[in-house]
Amino acid sequence: MKKYVIGLDFGTLSARALLCDASNGDEIATAASNYAHGVMDRALPTGEPLPHDWALQHPQDYIDALFTIIPSVMRQSGVSPADVIGVGLDTTGCTLLPVASDLTPLCLSEKYRHEKHAWVKLWKHHSTAPYAEKIDEIAHQRGETFLSRYGDKVSSEWLLPKVLETLSEAPEVYHDAAYFIELMDYIVWLLTGELCRSACALGYKAFWSKREGFPSDSFYSALDPRLSKFPEEKFAGKILSTGERAGFLTKEAAEKLGLLPGTPVAIGTLDAHVAAPALSVTEEGQMFAVLGTSGCHMVPGKKELIVPGICGYVEDGIIPGFFGYEAGQSCFGDLLGWYVQNAVPAEYTSAAAAKGMDIHSYLTEKASALRVGESGLLALDWWNGNRSVLADFSLSGLMVGMTLRTRPEEIYRALLESVAFGTRAIVENYRAYGVPVHELIATGGIVHKNPLLMQTLADVLRFPVRIGASREAPALGSAVCAACAAGKENGGYDTLIDASRSMGHVSDLLYTPIEDHSAVYDALYGEYKRLHDLFGRGGVDTMKKLRAIAAHA
Amino acid sequence: MKKYVIGLDFGTLSARALLCDASNGDEIATAASNYAHGVMDRALPTGEPLPHDWALQHPQDYIDALFTIIPSVMRQSGVSPADVIGVGLDTTGCTLLPVASDLTPLCLSEKYRHEKHAWVKLWKHHSTAPYAEKIDEIAHQRGETFLSRYGDKVSSEWLLPKVLETLSEAPEVYHDAAYFIELMDYIVWLLTGELCRSACALGYKAFWSKREGFPSDSFYSALDPRLSKFPEEKFAGKILSTGERAGFLTKEAAEKLGLLPGTPVAIGTLDAHVAAPALSVTEEGQMFAVLGTSGCHMVPGKKELIVPGICGYVEDGIIPGFFGYEAGQSCFGDLLGWYVQNAVPAEYTSAAAAKGMDIHSYLTEKASALRVGESGLLALDWWNGNRSVLADFSLSGLMVGMTLRTRPEEIYRALLESVAFGTRAIVENYRAYGVPVHELIATGGIVHKNPLLMQTLADVLRFPVRIGASREAPALGSAVCAACAAGKENGGYDTLIDASRSMGHVSDLLYTPIEDHSAVYDALYGEYKRLHDLFGRGGVDTMKKLRAIAAHA
Repeated sequence: MKKYVIGLDFGTLSARALLCDASNGDEIATAASNYAHGVMDRALPTGEPLPHDWALQHPQDYIDALFTIIPSVMRQSGVSPADVIGVGLDTTGCTLLPVASDLTPLCLSEKYRHEKHAWVKLWKHHSTAPYAEKIDEIAHQRGETFLSRYGDKVSSEWLLPKVLETLSEAPEVYHDAAYFIELMDYIVWLLTGELCRSACALGYKAFWSKREGFPSDSFYSALDPRLSKFPEEKFAGKILSTGERAGFLTKEAAEKLGLLPGTPVAIGTLDAHVAAPALSVTEEGQMFAVLGTSGCHMVPGKKELIVPGICGYVEDGIIPGFFGYEAGQSCFGDLLGWYVQNAVPAEYTSAAAAKGMDIHSYLTEKASALRVGESGLLALDWWNGNRSVLADFSLSGLMVGMTLRTRPEEIYRALLESVAFGTRAIVENYRAYGVPVHELIATGGIVHKNPLLMQTLADVLRFPVRIGASREAPALGSAVCAACAAGKENGGYDTLIDASRSMGHVSDLLYTPIEDHSAVYDALYGEYKRLHDLFGRGGVDTMKKLRAIAAHA
Repeated sequence: MKKYVIGLDFGTLSARALLCDASNGDEIATAASNYAHGVMDRALPTGEPLPHDWALQHPQDYIDALFTIIPSVMRQSGVSPADVIGVGLDTTGCTLLPVASDLTPLCLSEKYRHEKHAWVKLWKHHSTAPYAEKIDEIAHQRGETFLSRYGDKVSSEWLLPKVLETLSEAPEVYHDAAYFIELMDYIVWLLTGELCRSACALGYKAFWSKREGFPSDSFYSALDPRLSKFPEEKFAGKILSTGERAGFLTKEAAEKLGLLPGTPVAIGTLDAHVAAPALSVTEEGQMFAVLGTSGCHMVPGKKELIVPGICGYVEDGIIPGFFGYEAGQSCFGDLLGWYVQNAVPAEYTSAAAAKGMDIHSYLTEKASALRVGESGLLALDWWNGNRSVLADFSLSGLMVGMTLRTRPEEIYRALLESVAFGTRAIVENYRAYGVPVHELIATGGIVHKNPLLMQTLADVLRFPVRIGASREAPALGSAVCAACAAGKENGGYDTLIDASRSMGHVSDLLYTPIEDHSAVYDALYGEYKRLHDLFGRGGVDTMKKLRAIAAHA
């Protein structure tokens, strides 16, 4: 009798469910649901306007999605609930809810629905930047060693800046919140009634580690005396690793979902990191990347190493038994998207339409006809700042080499190459600090759409680039976790690696470096690196000066 | 009885005639004629293909234009030939013809019509670059002092590289050419039958000076022994200054033109420099600029000064009694033209069309709504290399500061600002070496079209910018020269300055610096200058590296 698992992926704008065969990962049914409120960055549902850089979400959107997509895949597949052996899930993070003691989000209460700090702060809620700086400063002053695990820099996207912002600007919300809870843990609670904490999210977003736990009480006190007992008071819950079982479906949830009560539910994970099991990443040096609007580059390593400029590393954070190193590019597909929206001439738009091609395909076709290096163009891919290895969001884009003969496809290609150079900077940084990287396994929307980009990555990186077989890698990864949480005795697996080897897949498509291209790219990367260090490491602070002038204007 | 003069302006693609009142410069009639062959950069009229970077013209085009536009203004105006007291003219330069002893262009002969070197080498014929380098090298080796008058650098656009190219690649053409002659001198010969040499062209394009004459025979010999007697053998003719009379209309020319034989003809000048009399530039420190696809910035000075990075200075070269300093920007309107052709999204093109606006006006309107510095963008305006003050055509464009929120009008404005910063670099360089600059008087197509650019120039330069009244400034300048050549006794003037004060005009439109803007532009210019020196003065040779990689591809 075949057994099935369901993987759920809660993204930034929608949630997807994937029902698949637990024996081999075969995808049986999928369903998706957009969030009615999307990203709230202008006003609360009650009308109160939001300041610049705010990004909130509505918890009801997650609930509505959850109770739509699981029934949908069950209906589509015709699978019996008795044959569903587990549910797993991943979400964005740090995406944080302040909740009451019964786990009700504060923003759903009459008292707090007009209070912006009571809503869900989405991962890209960036108004926290000054709090991140404060935390960074105090951690450095105190010589906190935990920061060295995180490239020595606090990101505004992490947990503590969000909490400190709430405490500072809306102390009553902080006080009335029985807990702060990551979105994946909130979903797990909706399904199981258990308050658990994803070790993956805690590790990458909340300074927690398996060996050292949370930072010391005195560190929290130094930030604000009211924070002194933060982890034990506001962050209580059982900490579980990826693939572990958080609990079982409650009767109430099971009824609404059309599943059986008692169905195992896996602990949630972060949506990028969960790609590892979907891509069958099980060995040291297998760098895998989730490439979409931005890029996230993770690699399992056997050794614990301090690597500057990365987002962080977490023991068991991606795959049990490995240190999961994470770095990222804050602009990837977004850069090409920006170009297409802002700088493609009408002549090209019309020509693409006449050929029935979408504009990216049209530009890619024209750009593919160029020889490597022919355009004389070079760009720094920092249109959205630099996440790794400079960890500086005040940096901005640069392009050099334009002449009166420069054509749109040359600019498009230079932008495309710049993100590949950005990836190479990450790989070289990993290697420079001892983390082996042998290959790239990529997933995400753009990898199936842009073969020129994939070939360029192989040429620039000088190693093979493989593509994930599934177009639903996070949901598949969560399904793998579900199969692990179910356990072998129920038709699943005993370890995440076993589950991953059976259910995760890469496609047959393999991009291998073309030596002639790589040789020219070596020279171009040399110039990229030179400008990268010049503008990024303080030699020339023009980008910061321009930003200051703009802020003043 | 009113007297009239005719000014002729032979541009790159067409020639224009202006008939105007000699007492006040009032424009009575104009006529223009396009050259049938335009710029020949792909093939000779006989079909032989031309190499990259070649730019030739057909002498018959000048002759046809000449005998079309003068009869046209006579016909239109109804002025009696007896009341036309002079003809003046300007042309592009160095635009060079090899001619036989009877002044027939060699390319019109059966023997040479298939030989590319026998045709007219247009000012922007750039295949001469290696010859310019050779001349530069030898002049430096020999410690030739004349080079210090020219910013210490030989341009491929000047006379000697063109001649040396012909001598080296087509020695028979060199041998059979009785003379090499600048276009303006060729036109003067067509009108008067006199072989004269424009001191303006000799000074700016052929290393000649009033005090020192041509470089020494030994310098020419060092370039090539066959050149040893070049000036006296191939460049014979009476040297005349701007405003002097070259001769009188021959009977044959007068008949074809509908004018009287014996009408005075002024010596020809360069088309940019002749703007001075049209703009009534008569004093030290009055910088005037001809702003079109590229920009040319000239200023009369009382003192003789060595100024690095300029195109050159010539005593009496612009106005008798002054040292005429010249610098230039190799990309001006061309930069905005490039942008509009290659990077304006369809959304903007359609919106402009819907409003019935041309795209430059539409972008300018949107760009004008931005606050100074708001975009956070900065560009180096080197899309066509840098003429002054770096004199390096291997440089290329750069833009920095882009984010995912950057909009097209911000890019347009940054490009527009970059050419204003380029102008400031020229002004600061003039001043640094002692040449006073107090104001800018601008002429050329773009000055009437783009008020934002004019205001930005005033804001960036921190001094007033005035606009020439005439849209035919070169032709008007040539008409002023004609009135001077006619002399006071014939209804003209005794000096060029007198003629210029009566006939030259600026419009009432005055752009004055807005202090709030200037303060921000000071900060932006500080960053411009920093990148200018970094990429332009050898600190970072990325632009050259990219060009080398592109050449190799």
